[in-house]
This record gives sequence, C-alpha cells and structure tokens, in this order.
Amino acid sequence: METKHIGAQSVAFHSTPGILETFSIVGPKEGRGPWGNDFDTILPDEIYGEKTWEKAERKILIEGLSNVITKSGFEPKAIDFLLAGDLLNQIISANFAAASFPISFFGLYGACSTIAEALILGAMLIDGGYAQKVIAAASSHNKTAERQFRFPIEFGSQRPPTAQWTVTGCGTVLLAAGGPNPKVTCATVGKVVDLGSKDPNDLGTAMAPAAADTLVTHFRDFAKNTADYDLIVTGDLGRVGSSILAELMENAGFPFRGNHIDCGISIFATDEDVHAGGSGCAALAVGYSGYLHKRLLAGKINKILIAGTGALLSPLSTQQNENIPGVCHAVAIEVI
Amino acid sequence: METKHIGAQSVAFHSTPGILETFSIVGPKEGRGPWGNDFDTILPDEIYGEKTWEKAERKILIEGLSNVITKSGFEPKAIDFLLAGDLLNQIISANFAAASFPISFFGLYGACSTIAEALILGAMLIDGGYAQKVIAAASSHNKTAERQFRFPIEFGSQRPPTAQWTVTGCGTVLLAAGGPNPKVTCATVGKVVDLGSKDPNDLGTAMAPAAADTLVTHFRDFAKNTADYDLIVTGDLGRVGSSILAELMENAGFPFRGNHIDCGISIFATDEDVHAGGSGCAALAVGYSGYLHKRLLAGKINKILIAGTGALLSPLSTQQNENIPGVCHAVAIEVI
Repeated sequence: METKHIGAQSVAFHSTPGILETFSIVGPKEGRGPWGNDFDTILPDEIYGEKTWEKAERKILIEGLSNVITKSGFEPKAIDFLLAGDLLNQIISANFAAASFPISFFGLYGACSTIAEALILGAMLIDGGYAQKVIAAASSHNKTAERQFRFPIEFGSQRPPTAQWTVTGCGTVLLAAGGPNPKVTCATVGKVVDLGSKDPNDLGTAMAPAAADTLVTHFRDFAKNTADYDLIVTGDLGRVGSSILAELMENAGFPFRGNHIDCGISIFATDEDVHAGGSGCAALAVGYSGYLHKRLLAGKINKILIAGTGALLSPLSTQQNENIPGVCHAVAIEVI
Repeated sequence: METKHIGAQSVAFHSTPGILETFSIVGPKEGRGPWGNDFDTILPDEIYGEKTWEKAERKILIEGLSNVITKSGFEPKAIDFLLAGDLLNQIISANFAAASFPISFFGLYGACSTIAEALILGAMLIDGGYAQKVIAAASSHNKTAERQFRFPIEFGSQRPPTAQWTVTGCGTVLLAAGGPNPKVTCATVGKVVDLGSKDPNDLGTAMAPAAADTLVTHFRDFAKNTADYDLIVTGDLGRVGSSILAELMENAGFPFRGNHIDCGISIFATDEDVHAGGSGCAALAVGYSGYLHKRLLAGKINKILIAGTGALLSPLSTQQNENIPGVCHAVAIEVI
C-alpha cells in the first residue's frame, strides 16, 4: 500500500478525488473586481432581501449549496457529507444552512482557512473509502464580520491602512470519488503558529508566519519547490501579509517564482477602498470555486497549491490582550 | 475491500483504532459528583491561578493535552494530528491551546457534540491510513459559557428549571493505529435537525430530536437495536432532553432497555443545584475519558455507544429570534 502520511504534516490522496462541480456567489463589490466574470452569481446588494446581515449570509450559503448540488445533477440525498464553516460565533451560518439539507454534517472552525480544512477532510473521507460525494463549503459576509469582530459599519469607525475588507460570498466545492479533473492530490495540515502578533487591524502580519510554516513544510514533505506549481494561492494575507510571506519564503530557501497570488489582493479592483486587501473565509472559497476552477478546467493552469490562511482571535481574546496566532492549511489541486 | 460507508450516514472502521490513553480534568463541583473518583485531576477552583475564566479554560485544555501525551510515553511530535473544539466564540480555547503543541491541528465546532465529532474524524484519519496517532479533545467551562451565552455569573440572573449547568473541564483521548482495547469500531454522523425549538434556557428539548434521529439511523444502518450496547451514553440532554429522547426512541421502535445514561445527569451529585443537569462539550468528553474509559478497561462494560449532542445557537441568533437546531454524532467504542 502506498504511504498516505507523508513527512511531518502531510497526506497524499492516491485515489485523487475529483472536483465534480463548484458554485460561487459574491457581493456587488467583489463582482466589480477582476474576477467578476468568473463567479456564478453576483448579488445586487449584500442584504439579499433579508432582515439582517446574518440571515443574508445564511441565505447565500444555502443558495451556494443548493446550486452546486443542482449543477451536479444529483439529489441532495446523494451527497454523503457536508463539511462547512464560517466566521460567525458558533458558526451559525454553516450550522443553520446545514439544517436545510438532509446531509450528514461536520462543522469546522478554521477561521479564514476553513475551505482548505474542509477540502482536506473531504478528500480524506473519499480517498479513505468513507464517502462517494462530499461538499466542502465556506462563507463570509462583510457586514456580519465587521460588526462581530470590529464595529457595526453604521458606526463609521476609521480603519488603518493594514486593515482588510471581509469578502461577502460563499464558495462550494463538490468532491467525488473517481470524479473528473481537477483532482485533489495531496495536502499539508498546518500547526498553530504564534509569533506574538497582537493587532486585530493587521491580520496579514499575524497569518504570514503560519503560511510560511505550512508552505515550507509542504515543499519539504513532498521534496518539491515553488516552481512545481503553476500558482501558489494564499487566501487572505492581503498586501501586508503577502510581502512578509514572500520574504519568509525567500529566507527559507523557497522563493516564489512570480507564481504567488493572494485572493485577498486579487479579488477587488484597485480603485476599491479596501486598504490592505480582502479577507474572510469566502476569499479563497470564491477564489477557488470561481476564478481558479475555471482556469484549471480551461487548461490555462494545471497544478495549483491553495493555502487557506486563518487568524485565530475573537473580540474577547483581543480585549484580554492575547496574541493572534495563525494557521494555514495547504491543498494541491491538479489536472492529471 | 470491506464497505466503510454503511447505510445512510454511517461509517465503519475495520482496522478498529484503539484508545491508547485518556486524560480528564474537572472543576470542584464535578469532582464532588458520583464520578469524582474517575477523573485524573480535580481542580480546587475554576480560575486555576489565571486572571480570567477564558485563560483558565485554555490552561485546563493545555494540561489535558500535555498529560495525555505524557501518560502515553510519546513525545508531542509523535502525535500526527490534533482535533479539538470548544464552545467559545472562534473556539479560542482550542486554537490557543493548539499553539502550545507542534501538532497539525483541525479546529472543529460541533457545540457540545465536539468530542464525538473529533473521535469520528480522528478514527477516520487512522483507519484511512493518514495517521498513526491522533488526539481528540474538547473543553468547556461553566463561567466562560455562562457569560458568553447567557449572563456573567456576577449578575446573579435567575435560571429556569429547564436550564442546565455547563461542566467545567476537558477530556482528551489519544487514538492509535493498532492500539489496545477499547476500540473505535463505527460511527454515525448526524444531520442538523430543526424542529422549531427557540428557548435558550431549554437546550435539552432542542437537542433530543437530533439525538433520536442519529440513534435511530445508527441502529437502522447497522441493523442493530438498543440491547446490542451495554450502555448508550448521551452527552448533555439533561433530565428534560433525556425524557424526550426516551419517548422518541420508544415511538421509533428502539426503546432503551434501562441502558441509557446521560453525562449531564450523571456527572453532578443530586444535591448540587444544577436544575435539569449538566451540559457543555466537557460533559461527554470527561464522561468518556474519566468514567466510561475506566469501566471499559476494567471489563465492567464492553460495548458502548456515545452520542455527542449539540445545540446550535449563538446569543446573536437568539436575539434574531432564530430556532435552535440540534446535531448529534454517535460513536461506538468496544472491547473486542
């Protein structure tokens, strides 16, 4: 039997679960960005006919789940497991969305790394023989995140240049045993890394060391280097975190070869006022299920490593003067 | 190859990962209860030398993780993965505790079902061939949960008779490939069930339908009945939820045979003022890693089904008049 546990922190999926279908929904600001043509649905506003932002986020996730199932042509009951999470306290978006589907549910909290965590566990469920079809999903919403983590937007609080803008949207990914290309081939599961970062308005700095730790571990575990991927895609480091990551990778002997993008930077048009870039679970989730998946299908890129980055904090941990550790999970998706 | 995906929602672990070691820590009130002699550590108080309840909860979880590793005789680096969660916003107890260990980390949120969710995914990691050693862990703390979900205890708010008392403590379980008895043999992953419950002071009623749904599915998927287990152990339904569950099981044709216990009811002495019983992630986590594990080792019981029950709500979802769905994950642990 081929080894499935590689090196220190990595796993290989020898049966290479295929990504059968994806669905992406974004808000209007994301829809105006460079990836606007790649999303399945662009909402005209962020409230989506609901009474609260939280109800809107849940509706977005339910729509994303319904649509990925409908596009696949399967009945909801044909999906074996749903793995999902979001940023809200007690992941109410994912929990409440799951209540709309007759599917066994694993609730995850990986902050903004959630879609990567869900893809790793989903690929294991299939590759390990426990499932035929699994959905990995994550959502975030600018207005629910702002009022929970910082201030309600009505308050008009000023944001420093290092602050990021939470992406509104959701991305859903349907994995299937023996499914078509692209395939989930391997992954590296992150450790929690705490270098003493404390500023909740600079999460890029808090997450970059975790991203470097996981990426370097990935390349070492698989004896690869950065040039082995067409693109290395981080979730939401933004401009501040991405430049720290580039330096850390260079210092570790794994410099990027012009092949790193960050969804937080790429998703918004440069004339949008998002400071250091986008953030949130949805950044990588819609980045993959919209932009990246279409390019893999079109043969424009063939091997990518997506690295979900999460800042581990709560408003209460900030009030108690705790550090902000980071975590990063990396998943390789390849046309083979 | 034997089938690993059984029926609608269940999985079988044919390599039967063994439970190598457990560690349990509880607060003083739990230590005075009927299971007092079964816990590894009983704290003299709930603040544990820290400045805040949240720092105390984290310290408890770190101690639980350190001790289960030390008891096993392995180095922390020998543990492949840690799966953990708690009730706090953004699972800060688990996230911050994970930062103290050089172990790849999956953050979970399953409300009070978390230890069962962690055991299922942990057993899959081992049985699927991705890991040799995995720790599943969950914590809760009466004072952190009260002030987050309800009121700070200093407020002196009155609690209705249906309310439950969050257990302070943590339970950690070290699973190992080819490990000794008891073994994790199979599991049923729950769907989110929403029957319209709305009272955050009566979570037993909110969770009982999910518990019945998962248990009935488990017995159907494996063509078993309740008498096939020496004990069926729910996490934290309390007195109200347990009596609803008993009725639902009877109506579904799977009556308990005097072999159901609920950790929320069993953990506290009857003269403690806990109203409908205990609750929290730690109820089942310490119930298993303390009381149940020792009885399995001693041969007093041989086959148990532990059913982690979770109420899916947040203070904000309650304010927005949302329902409280429930979820339940069931795991069979057997001496074979």
